[in-house]
Amino acid sequence: MRPNVSSPLYAAIDLGSNSFHMLIVRHIDGSVQTMAKIKRKVRLAAGLNEDNSLSHEAMQRGWDCLSLFAERLQDIPQENIRIVGTATLRTATNVNEFLEKANQILGQDINVIPGEEEAATIYKGVAHTSGGIGRRLVVDIGGASTEFIIGEGFEAKALTSLKMGCVTWLERHFKDRELNQTNFDHAIEAAKQTLSPIVEQYCQLGWDICVGASGTVQALQEIMLAQGMDEVITLPKLKRLQKQAMLSDHLEELEIEGLTLERALVFPSGLSILIAIFESFGIEEMTLAGGALREGLVYEMVDGLRQNDIRARTITSIQHRYQLDQAYGEQVAALTSDLLAQCGGSDWVEEPHAEMLLRSAAHLHEIGLSIDFKKGGEHSAYLLQHLDLPGYTRAQKFYLGEIARRYREQLTSLPEQHALSASSAKRILRLLRIAVILSHRRHHTLMPDFSLHADGDNLTLTLSQDWLERNPLTRAELELEANRQSDIGWPLTINTD
Amino acid sequence: MRPNVSSPLYAAIDLGSNSFHMLIVRHIDGSVQTMAKIKRKVRLAAGLNEDNSLSHEAMQRGWDCLSLFAERLQDIPQENIRIVGTATLRTATNVNEFLEKANQILGQDINVIPGEEEAATIYKGVAHTSGGIGRRLVVDIGGASTEFIIGEGFEAKALTSLKMGCVTWLERHFKDRELNQTNFDHAIEAAKQTLSPIVEQYCQLGWDICVGASGTVQALQEIMLAQGMDEVITLPKLKRLQKQAMLSDHLEELEIEGLTLERALVFPSGLSILIAIFESFGIEEMTLAGGALREGLVYEMVDGLRQNDIRARTITSIQHRYQLDQAYGEQVAALTSDLLAQCGGSDWVEEPHAEMLLRSAAHLHEIGLSIDFKKGGEHSAYLLQHLDLPGYTRAQKFYLGEIARRYREQLTSLPEQHALSASSAKRILRLLRIAVILSHRRHHTLMPDFSLHADGDNLTLTLSQDWLERNPLTRAELELEANRQSDIGWPLTINTD
Repeated sequence: MRPNVSSPLYAAIDLGSNSFHMLIVRHIDGSVQTMAKIKRKVRLAAGLNEDNSLSHEAMQRGWDCLSLFAERLQDIPQENIRIVGTATLRTATNVNEFLEKANQILGQDINVIPGEEEAATIYKGVAHTSGGIGRRLVVDIGGASTEFIIGEGFEAKALTSLKMGCVTWLERHFKDRELNQTNFDHAIEAAKQTLSPIVEQYCQLGWDICVGASGTVQALQEIMLAQGMDEVITLPKLKRLQKQAMLSDHLEELEIEGLTLERALVFPSGLSILIAIFESFGIEEMTLAGGALREGLVYEMVDGLRQNDIRARTITSIQHRYQLDQAYGEQVAALTSDLLAQCGGSDWVEEPHAEMLLRSAAHLHEIGLSIDFKKGGEHSAYLLQHLDLPGYTRAQKFYLGEIARRYREQLTSLPEQHALSASSAKRILRLLRIAVILSHRRHHTLMPDFSLHADGDNLTLTLSQDWLERNPLTRAELELEANRQSDIGWPLTINTD
Repeated sequence: MRPNVSSPLYAAIDLGSNSFHMLIVRHIDGSVQTMAKIKRKVRLAAGLNEDNSLSHEAMQRGWDCLSLFAERLQDIPQENIRIVGTATLRTATNVNEFLEKANQILGQDINVIPGEEEAATIYKGVAHTSGGIGRRLVVDIGGASTEFIIGEGFEAKALTSLKMGCVTWLERHFKDRELNQTNFDHAIEAAKQTLSPIVEQYCQLGWDICVGASGTVQALQEIMLAQGMDEVITLPKLKRLQKQAMLSDHLEELEIEGLTLERALVFPSGLSILIAIFESFGIEEMTLAGGALREGLVYEMVDGLRQNDIRARTITSIQHRYQLDQAYGEQVAALTSDLLAQCGGSDWVEEPHAEMLLRSAAHLHEIGLSIDFKKGGEHSAYLLQHLDLPGYTRAQKFYLGEIARRYREQLTSLPEQHALSASSAKRILRLLRIAVILSHRRHHTLMPDFSLHADGDNLTLTLSQDWLERNPLTRAELELEANRQSDIGWPLTINTD
């Protein structure tokens, strides 16, 4: 048995313009595990007077919150703590008065970071928690600033912080709290003007995928989920939500299915900024980042997590944490790739990420056995759908869970999902099941020779008669599997040569 | 990151009188994890002719099944395989004919073990998987034999195997397949006669707890669960089930809520034997064992799992596998014991195993954080209720899950459970929650001085005013907790001195 390591705690504190956040984590076998989260809506930006000085009330709200944080920091080594202040503290003329007492309360210095450093840290948080290859545009809409980053892998190529945020835009363009066309138009137009100095540079650099961080994008995800949409944010969806918002006259009456009370106040202003960003940059699709500023602070402190392929890091980490059999996982993954190639590869399953999902499932489908053999597939689904899997989106986690739920025994149709087309989703599951049966003796030298032929949804698996006679368990399982797939309308024939 | 160990597989095969079973496991960090189970109802005992020779058909059924097993054994090291034959193979006059071909199919020798060795192995399986202290009576009703063992810890003090089983009793006393009083009476009476030679010796040795293994007891558990009873088997419950069975005239029509088709045929005969055992030995309560023969074979092969306190071994193993913070677990466990003692200990919570459950929850409540911080309590409940936890009964696992579900944040009433009285169940949960708040800074040196006073269900927690002022987060959490407990009718007052 390996020795128990009471692994050290790390804390990242972010004194934002809307809320103060504290995140406490442990580093476990290549994963960052959240141990506590504390958040207080301090609304520092709302306490900025016309001369850019912080009101005493706002400072007091901040200090009160920091006293809570300070208590919790007592069992964390000082070198494992990072505390940063952002836009409002950058702006406040009397920031020193606030910091003097704040540092005293925390027993630790607050680092008010420049906008570019904030952007760089956000990018680290995104790069460590989001999958996908190619060049990335990252957008993080905060309370008083919005950061834009273009990067590739762990390297940022452009970093910008603009003085525009959902709290400042609320006070500036929805001061009367009315949700009408005029206010939205003004808010969007003002955001476009703020964006205009950087649009050309960013569009020239270009990007392959676009990722959004922060509360506004998080709120959008929750709304889209609650309203049964897929997870990809597009301009038409944003416009539809603007219309839904304008069905209420006043901000206080705002009601959108899936929008929580906590996020409602700054939702219309954040939405306006996001619409301006989509239109100015010509963004087609955006997905939610797995992390941002606080995660960037954490990953800066925790060593040894920098690996270019985030998904590969996630799979290795999960295999270690759940002590899965890696050699077996690799065997099944190689076999699924082979099966897919024999079926015609991307001619048969068009989405480029389908094979990645198939191989991921091949590596992880047995995870549920760590809970119990009985209902192992159910347990796999539970774990894959609830675990934090950096590099996989929510829809991908859901799909991985649904195919792992069905990796053996009874076969039922897949539920609606948004990771793949219905046709590809089904085909990937079929290949996974066949691969699991062919590798049930868990050693690659014990694999049969076979060929798999696909004619649309008609699959024919051919093995030698001789081999099947010598391996009656596999024969019985393949025959059962042919019936199970065929019974739900997915024809599978076992042939001998 | 620790290196990945592709841990070796072990196989235990048991050629029983009713079914052949193969169990394949891995040894992971002090736990035995099931990787595959294959079972075929070979009904060997039913193939025994009047002259005690096995029919060719029965032998063929056996050989066919072994061909399946043989295929699956190919990737398992020979020294990690145990194959045993039991009662029917002990009895069959032409056993050598069966074995010769069987050994050839398996490429490995079958060990037909004497009844006492079977009993000893069953006891090992029980001792490694069942909790509880004191002397244990173990009963395992097989197809053609029933084993009786009295033991303590890992040491068996009496071992007996009797030629009586649910298949032989079916053929002898329910040959007409009628479920009438006469058949039951005869079956019970015959079982009592078979038992009579050992009753005195066993009753003189005595026991503190009684544990049942095998299909009959398993079937009873499933029925009791389906019918909403608790998990303790008693004579009145067995009699009630006999009456339920006699509502059907014929075995083919037998319908009892919770009884699966697979177990139905030998249920009345097994029930008769169990009733005879309860009456002859004067047994008051029996619970289901966590394992028996196959588990005994596995634990004989896997080194390093012998630890007298099975529950302590389970907790340590789970803490390692899920990389829980053991020092924190010990801190919370010590605190819960202290809180319970201050409330009056066994005067306040009468069941002797209540403190054990409280301390177990203290060690394991954070397990859900390994899945995700969000809904951590839900994840803890899922894991504790589905994990194999040797030493804990099903009802105890359910209860542990329910209190871990509620270890923090929102508090809701507990559902019906059978591990503790409703009053104790609630009190244990209240102490766990208080302990978790008092140790939220995860170091024992940061604990406040406090005293807890219980007057029935009225709890008063007293801390110093000074300490609370210096620790505003704990103060806020305790005030919230006082409201949460009081709001659902569990009065909690926070006092200062």
